[in-house]
Amino acid sequence: MSNTVHTHTFPNGLTLLAESMDFVRSAAVYFLIPAGCAHEAPEDAGLASALAEMLPRGAGDRDTEALMLAFDSLGIDHNEGPGLLNMFASGSTVAKNLPQALDLFADVLLRPQLPKDDLPAVQSQLLQDLQSLDDSPQEQVMLELQRRYYPSPLNADRYGTEETLKSLTVKKLRAFHQRLFRPNGTIISVAGRIDWPKLKDQVERLFGGWPVGEKHGLTIDPAHKPQSVHLTKDKQQTQITFAFPSVSVTDPLYFAAKGTVGVLSSGMSSRLFTEVREKRGLCYSVYASHEAMKDRGTIVGYSGTRPERAQETLDVMLAEFNKLRDGVQQDEIDRTKAGLKTSLIMQQESTSARAGAIARDWYYLGRVRSFDEIQHEIDSLSPRSVMDYVDAFPFRDPTIVTLGPAELKRP
Amino acid sequence: MSNTVHTHTFPNGLTLLAESMDFVRSAAVYFLIPAGCAHEAPEDAGLASALAEMLPRGAGDRDTEALMLAFDSLGIDHNEGPGLLNMFASGSTVAKNLPQALDLFADVLLRPQLPKDDLPAVQSQLLQDLQSLDDSPQEQVMLELQRRYYPSPLNADRYGTEETLKSLTVKKLRAFHQRLFRPNGTIISVAGRIDWPKLKDQVERLFGGWPVGEKHGLTIDPAHKPQSVHLTKDKQQTQITFAFPSVSVTDPLYFAAKGTVGVLSSGMSSRLFTEVREKRGLCYSVYASHEAMKDRGTIVGYSGTRPERAQETLDVMLAEFNKLRDGVQQDEIDRTKAGLKTSLIMQQESTSARAGAIARDWYYLGRVRSFDEIQHEIDSLSPRSVMDYVDAFPFRDPTIVTLGPAELKRP
Repeated sequence: MSNTVHTHTFPNGLTLLAESMDFVRSAAVYFLIPAGCAHEAPEDAGLASALAEMLPRGAGDRDTEALMLAFDSLGIDHNEGPGLLNMFASGSTVAKNLPQALDLFADVLLRPQLPKDDLPAVQSQLLQDLQSLDDSPQEQVMLELQRRYYPSPLNADRYGTEETLKSLTVKKLRAFHQRLFRPNGTIISVAGRIDWPKLKDQVERLFGGWPVGEKHGLTIDPAHKPQSVHLTKDKQQTQITFAFPSVSVTDPLYFAAKGTVGVLSSGMSSRLFTEVREKRGLCYSVYASHEAMKDRGTIVGYSGTRPERAQETLDVMLAEFNKLRDGVQQDEIDRTKAGLKTSLIMQQESTSARAGAIARDWYYLGRVRSFDEIQHEIDSLSPRSVMDYVDAFPFRDPTIVTLGPAELKRP
Repeated sequence: MSNTVHTHTFPNGLTLLAESMDFVRSAAVYFLIPAGCAHEAPEDAGLASALAEMLPRGAGDRDTEALMLAFDSLGIDHNEGPGLLNMFASGSTVAKNLPQALDLFADVLLRPQLPKDDLPAVQSQLLQDLQSLDDSPQEQVMLELQRRYYPSPLNADRYGTEETLKSLTVKKLRAFHQRLFRPNGTIISVAGRIDWPKLKDQVERLFGGWPVGEKHGLTIDPAHKPQSVHLTKDKQQTQITFAFPSVSVTDPLYFAAKGTVGVLSSGMSSRLFTEVREKRGLCYSVYASHEAMKDRGTIVGYSGTRPERAQETLDVMLAEFNKLRDGVQQDEIDRTKAGLKTSLIMQQESTSARAGAIARDWYYLGRVRSFDEIQHEIDSLSPRSVMDYVDAFPFRDPTIVTLGPAELKRP
């Protein structure tokens, strides 16, 4: 099984990627458009979320009802939602319905009606989503870390505030759409049972006339210093999260960073799981992960635990990060590699996972990595490469955000 | 693409199922053992959860550390956990590692060491899981519905109480394991790139000598009446859930019940989504679903919403259930069918989804349904079949459980 990947960039800058998986009957499509939350003015926070909710409420010739009926008649499972830097849309369906799905998405993305009458219901939904955060402490603590750790506007999020959500108007939505939705910088990726020449022709017909738009850069606050904080909340659990600077996907040390996270947090024999959960029973959930942007990366740690054991949990977690400098063993690296390879193979078998993966590759690297290339990178991991990473990015000065009844001592 | 399914029942009653998917490189395995939470004595609630946590802590010749290392060295993503009636274990890996994965699972399921020294950490974890429920109101309201709606012991759950968790002992775990883990009633299912004769031989070698065990029936409380309740909690959202009796998987009306749920809750044009979310913006999340056991089924509704709009949300949801008796349209059925078919095709492409699906088929029906059979059942759905279901199971007397700052009026 080796999937073929086709790529084409149209004159207006739109890139189409397609991975042919002839052994399946489904197809998945993924859109990445450079119009995420970070592009909102602070006084319009939540605008990208509202736009994502409004996009499928009528587009092209179809009103809200007709459009929802059209998607459902084709059995298309679809989603639209804002990320930090990009707006995403995705859909999965039986392969024979892919052309009709693309027709619908072209309307949704290029010709949304943004009907005024639907805005109050969307605002009401988003207000509820915002309020429900308080009932989801894990999500809340992760969000607060992002707000404190990243410089503006990379600390934006999809929620907005009660005030900004109430002030949204269709005029603002339309302006955001007109300003930011553009073919240059947009990626459309498809994976599954496809006919490449037909797909390319259809995408050209649907998106080829989309006029080139201006590129809007972001001004990143140069004076920002990450801030640790405790949020006092009367909860049953104390939520703990922290962040360390790391590398971007394009960095030569990227796979070493993944390997480092693997030694800490991949499988039941990993260091965090063994020391925090298995030996001490300090928590139900503990992990580390790597978050990547184009120009930077972050390694994040998380655990939710009982308030009376929260200090010990934080201390043991940070100690495990620090101990990495004392070296890692070959067998730890071997297990991390085995885990990464299983994930890689599983991903190859899912149309939606592949559609997302090739789009992200193009976004970060400007090309799609082959299975063999990634496998080679995983094979090249060694205790030496992980130590190179730890030397270059020592785990010092974590930004720590906690949420719970009582504040914790920071190291 | 048409997958071949092999089935074999060994003399000791163990059933092995395998679906050959030659287009993949992975394999998934799924174990279903008749030893779920409903088999716990009330004073030992949480025992099945503790056993699931203890199973991988040393088994056969390997201690905890060696066993965790062995799983991770093979890149096996595995889980063990209790359901209401059955204990589950599952794993996914690269196909070539499947035989070694089965060796490990045989140790874990048949020869767990259940080391005394590990029990305090497991109890601590489970206590935290129990306490964290209060920080997860959606999970809490669904759990409370199950406790109030089903008769004992079908209202058991995995959490236990602080008292019962603290009273657990290795002796109790061992007795539960010895009493309930048995080959008759156990299903092992595998999906992916497999070699059937070799797989069958290996499973015979590993599990063929497992002695037949006694079948333990459950005594279902005949006097139980479902109870509605409101839990007063100072939360930002009011959680609403309710239940109506429905049919089991074996019932001729089963697909009609799925179709009925589809009209209410499949896709953005479904009735609940349109009336509750899209037109009124009453909530962020609303759905209906069908839950099946062997001898009964339940249709459940759920929404989380702002307290001041909770009464309206509940009223509109129940009104939509009731309106079904006025008829459904052919195009609603057509959309539901399209959604069910997409899901069916997606499921065919995932080894872990197939391993679970064939095991559940065997558990409920004593056979594995073919793709064509399920497709035929979906094709046969009509407004008439949904009306037959609604006539046979009119939506009367819901059991309603709500959680939030203020109580709601029940119809």
